[in-house]
Amino acid sequence: MLQKGFTLWFTGLSGAGKTTIARIVADEIRSRGRNVEVMDGDIVRQNLSKGLGFSKEDRDTNIKRIAFVCKILTRNGVATIAAAISPYREVRDFARQDIGHFVEVFVDCPLEECIRRDTKGLYAKALSGEIPQFTGVSDPYEHPLHPEVWLHTERESPEASAGRVLAKLEELGYLSPAEEPVYSPEEEEKIQERLANLGYL
Amino acid sequence: MLQKGFTLWFTGLSGAGKTTIARIVADEIRSRGRNVEVMDGDIVRQNLSKGLGFSKEDRDTNIKRIAFVCKILTRNGVATIAAAISPYREVRDFARQDIGHFVEVFVDCPLEECIRRDTKGLYAKALSGEIPQFTGVSDPYEHPLHPEVWLHTERESPEASAGRVLAKLEELGYLSPAEEPVYSPEEEEKIQERLANLGYL
Repeated sequence: MLQKGFTLWFTGLSGAGKTTIARIVADEIRSRGRNVEVMDGDIVRQNLSKGLGFSKEDRDTNIKRIAFVCKILTRNGVATIAAAISPYREVRDFARQDIGHFVEVFVDCPLEECIRRDTKGLYAKALSGEIPQFTGVSDPYEHPLHPEVWLHTERESPEASAGRVLAKLEELGYLSPAEEPVYSPEEEEKIQERLANLGYL
Repeated sequence: MLQKGFTLWFTGLSGAGKTTIARIVADEIRSRGRNVEVMDGDIVRQNLSKGLGFSKEDRDTNIKRIAFVCKILTRNGVATIAAAISPYREVRDFARQDIGHFVEVFVDCPLEECIRRDTKGLYAKALSGEIPQFTGVSDPYEHPLHPEVWLHTERESPEASAGRVLAKLEELGYLSPAEEPVYSPEEEEKIQERLANLGYL
């Protein structure tokens, strides 16, 4: 039976944590028996958008290509994850309309923190002017106004962020809750003991 | 349960019948309860390859993009159909390796017949020089050496061609045979009578 496809769309600055959180979410969805595909910005630039630059027009073209593939995967029941900066609101909204089953995740992180992390060493180059048109530095980022999930990665762990995304997918009916773990009587006793010690019982 | 994905790759001259046959095949596969996607050359040029021209390099880039999407769909159990001229053998062989479950269909039709049909009016323009780099006229077409299916559309109907493609998919285990029709006793009697009249019984 075909499961309900959807596209989980991560947007945010370079270094905000999109790919990291996307991978944790993907692993968890996969472990629940679903087909998952991650359309990562870098992979897509390599495979579908080589030759495109970073003007607004080229960025929009790149995002529309990602949306095209996400749409096809989504209608075939795949749990599809896009993780690309996608700085412009209008083209994200186009993707939302075009794909239909669309869950937007704003991976929010202050620019200062992204610069501090500088995981790929790109901010240093952007700030020195070596890379022009860098989102957040010399190019705009238009954050979502009503994302389904709004993460704050400067103050929560990637695992906690992933947990909030998964909870939203369950709430929207795109994902079945993880099965309750089955404990042996001994394990159950230990858990009860622990809960009692913590004052929950 | 995930069904076995595959990519059915139609190659041949413009006007040879790729899209026509692909659509008949797609409808039949869909009627057997499978998810089907058709990556038509024109649709892909519009959505993934706008801006690319018809040099060998640009054609190869276009085909690699089609192959990238076909690969993702195939590994998610979709019956995927590509219908693009794809004139160069090397990049088709790349697609075969990259996708894995790959069934190549050579839609063979003599150039003279394609020019006579000229369904899109493109050959007239190519022959007058209005369109440069037109496959078969001013650009090469390297036909497959060992395609899984070799169609001859100048001497068989699109339905007959589609039937041969479907038979090959069944033979390769990618597609379950169509269910036997169930006849009423009256219908069964008539069929027996007809077979007897034809000398089969």
